[in-house]
Amino acid sequence: MNELLKSLSKVHSPSGEEVNMKEYIINYIDQHASKWKVKPQIFQDEYFQDSLVLVFGNPTLAAFAHMDTTGFMVRYQDQLIHIGGPEVSGDEMLVGNDVLGDIECKLALNEEHQMHYKFGRAIISGTSLSYKNNYHESDQFITSPYLDNRVGIYNLLKIAESLENGALVFSCWEEHGGGSVPFLTKFLYEKFQIKKMLISDITWVSDGVAFHKGVVVSFRDKNIPRRSFIDNIVKLTIQNEISFQIEVEAYGSSDAKEIQQSPYPIDWCFIGPPIENAHSDHEKISKQDLDSMLSIYSMLFNKL
Amino acid sequence: MNELLKSLSKVHSPSGEEVNMKEYIINYIDQHASKWKVKPQIFQDEYFQDSLVLVFGNPTLAAFAHMDTTGFMVRYQDQLIHIGGPEVSGDEMLVGNDVLGDIECKLALNEEHQMHYKFGRAIISGTSLSYKNNYHESDQFITSPYLDNRVGIYNLLKIAESLENGALVFSCWEEHGGGSVPFLTKFLYEKFQIKKMLISDITWVSDGVAFHKGVVVSFRDKNIPRRSFIDNIVKLTIQNEISFQIEVEAYGSSDAKEIQQSPYPIDWCFIGPPIENAHSDHEKISKQDLDSMLSIYSMLFNKL
Amino acid sequence: MNELLKSLSKVHSPSGEEVNMKEYIINYIDQHASKWKVKPQIFQDEYFQDSLVLVFGNPTLAAFAHMDTTGFMVRYQDQLIHIGGPEVSGDEMLVGNDVLGDIECKLALNEEHQMHYKFGRAIISGTSLSYKNNYHESDQFITSPYLDNRVGIYNLLKIAESLENGALVFSCWEEHGGGSVPFLTKFLYEKFQIKKMLISDITWVSDGVAFHKGVVVSFRDKNIPRRSFIDNIVKLTIQNEISFQIEVEAYGSSDAKEIQQSPYPIDWCFIGPPIENAHSDHEKISKQDLDSMLSIYSMLFNKL
Repeated sequence: MNELLKSLSKVHSPSGEEVNMKEYIINYIDQHASKWKVKPQIFQDEYFQDSLVLVFGNPTLAAFAHMDTTGFMVRYQDQLIHIGGPEVSGDEMLVGNDVLGDIECKLALNEEHQMHYKFGRAIISGTSLSYKNNYHESDQFITSPYLDNRVGIYNLLKIAESLENGALVFSCWEEHGGGSVPFLTKFLYEKFQIKKMLISDITWVSDGVAFHKGVVVSFRDKNIPRRSFIDNIVKLTIQNEISFQIEVEAYGSSDAKEIQQSPYPIDWCFIGPPIENAHSDHEKISKQDLDSMLSIYSMLFNKL
Repeated sequence: MNELLKSLSKVHSPSGEEVNMKEYIINYIDQHASKWKVKPQIFQDEYFQDSLVLVFGNPTLAAFAHMDTTGFMVRYQDQLIHIGGPEVSGDEMLVGNDVLGDIECKLALNEEHQMHYKFGRAIISGTSLSYKNNYHESDQFITSPYLDNRVGIYNLLKIAESLENGALVFSCWEEHGGGSVPFLTKFLYEKFQIKKMLISDITWVSDGVAFHKGVVVSFRDKNIPRRSFIDNIVKLTIQNEISFQIEVEAYGSSDAKEIQQSPYPIDWCFIGPPIENAHSDHEKISKQDLDSMLSIYSMLFNKL
Repeated sequence: MNELLKSLSKVHSPSGEEVNMKEYIINYIDQHASKWKVKPQIFQDEYFQDSLVLVFGNPTLAAFAHMDTTGFMVRYQDQLIHIGGPEVSGDEMLVGNDVLGDIECKLALNEEHQMHYKFGRAIISGTSLSYKNNYHESDQFITSPYLDNRVGIYNLLKIAESLENGALVFSCWEEHGGGSVPFLTKFLYEKFQIKKMLISDITWVSDGVAFHKGVVVSFRDKNIPRRSFIDNIVKLTIQNEISFQIEVEAYGSSDAKEIQQSPYPIDWCFIGPPIENAHSDHEKISKQDLDSMLSIYSMLFNKL
């Protein structure tokens, strides 16, 4: 059992409430950083709001993992509205809490596909809810809500163990319009002159991307990175014999959108494993693809 | 009769032509600032284009009111295209002027709901038009075009009378894609280290927001602010016994969008009264809700 | 025959691969700058990625021409996805190359209007393709793929010959979400305090804009510039007796979008000739309109 990933998947941190995940990660660092190869600088003062940056040695490359998840917010009466873009089919179990106590309720869809909750009492308007934890492993797969993006966070926390030079960035609001990447990018570029960034996040199984074929290096999604940067990553990955597959998609986005639009000349690439059932309460990932994710990030922090 | 609000509602300032409102406000300040508790610094040089910033004492909090309105622009022949998102049903009276003189014409909708003008002569292409002034008060309500956002401007000009520390910001282009908030935010953060911002604007009556129940504190619209900041505002508002209602919406946006996306770590909250008939020529607001708007801004500039 | 424009139209530079056009322009400058009135500073180090800036004398005005074009990228199997928004009707000839060699293939549309290629071998996923060169001139017209925006680049290279003070900017990603204008604008404003920018690009023939009536000065498209700046340009253009027509559109966008949204107070105006068949492989422009484009830019760099 991957205890770290399982534990990460339990944290309630929909967009706007990432502080819970930030505190989890800081606590994790307190417990584990003494065994890491290099002790990082930890940036977490008020400039960073609920985001977090770890800087190891002399960084020239940064990797971003967003801490927020999709979710739900109670509107008025029993209505729910979306945080980000959750994919629901009805009857999902949701959890959260308000001033009246802990909540475990069921999601219901009406005929117009509008979302409501079913619970024994009214929930205070503005309360956020998320999928109830439901983590499973088999020989080849992990299934859980919010692998997007607990997998990306897990990747960075594992990379941290042996990282000598690089920046690990834990961002906010990725699922709902962004808002932290602009000031994080400003910080990384102005303080450390970092011009290369990777997106540690998950993508989708498709007609060109399958399970067990390795981590995905994305040539493009809705955003198009500078081609020469991608070509270099592909070359290094082949030279180092890491299992990978390429993705060429017209849709989908990530923290890279805000890096691309920032007023800094930064190259970026999306690298992560594919999942099935994206944004549902049963996202599914191949363990083998997760392994090759760790390998490619380790390699790129050394050689890119 | 609220003479200041009535007078503000007469100014022609669709997005891109805010200079008229800027001049109105500067003139107002010249006439009234001598009676204000603190004399503000006035920022209005070319860095600010047609925007305007008043800084009182040592500010840690800023409030934004946009000066532009929705409107119409003459395309070719008798065609009109929208500035922002006006809500029309046909037969609205529009005013403006071109090199041939003053214009007062009627809006007509064809079968495809396209907008045209009816006037005794051709109007020069590129001319902007706005709803004809039509301000009314009853015991409980004010009805007028462009309460969005003359109400937000009015709020700031009244707050100015007793403000000791804070920044009042009059912005441009809010109704049509933005464009001034990025440089205003840069100025406020870099020169005064302001990290907290309020949006002084109007929102909508809905199935969860009603007239006479007080100013609205928005937990979210299309944008989601940092929850801990909103929770603190709600706590202070309850402690100070100010009448308010909360809003939880999936749609709608404001100057907050550009604050959220700026490369500065700034907390923000939308606070304003609800209106009916948004973006029509007969927007309607409760006087009682407007009163509680003044109360909450006064309180927050002292205590937040 | 306009040999420079014809030659520019042959360069393969879809969004993300502008490096080819950058190299073309640098080579052109090496060959021609010795005859220019003023020798410009050339900015092309890694801060600029694949963009390029030429600065003549003491600049107060900059003109932007984007170097990228729309195009196609091979997804999986024989599928093509769009780069930017190409307008295709089927049977267009496309060119490019992958590790297996040069490619000249035909575009096919299936019943759902999805794009595929027809070629004797499989093309490597991620390969970019563009319309095959097909440049024609008649007495009055030029027809070619990618007049958008080879015309804008041509304009700047011709202006360069006699320019004394000003900045010429060659940007990236305009057709696909942007990404270079933010750092270019930051550079121009912070290093040279440039607050006025023109967009050297093409627009559309419409019910209000016709061939042979001169270059278009746009009052607005999806974006609305500050009106006082446009009024000043129109006044100067009339005074200098340059043939022009005005445009008032609700839709369409350009590099101006990112200038407007930048954290700098910059006035901008879109100025360029109209074309027919935008984003197709047979864009068409009036030679007369192109002439008046050169005239207005020359005049504005002297007088604005």
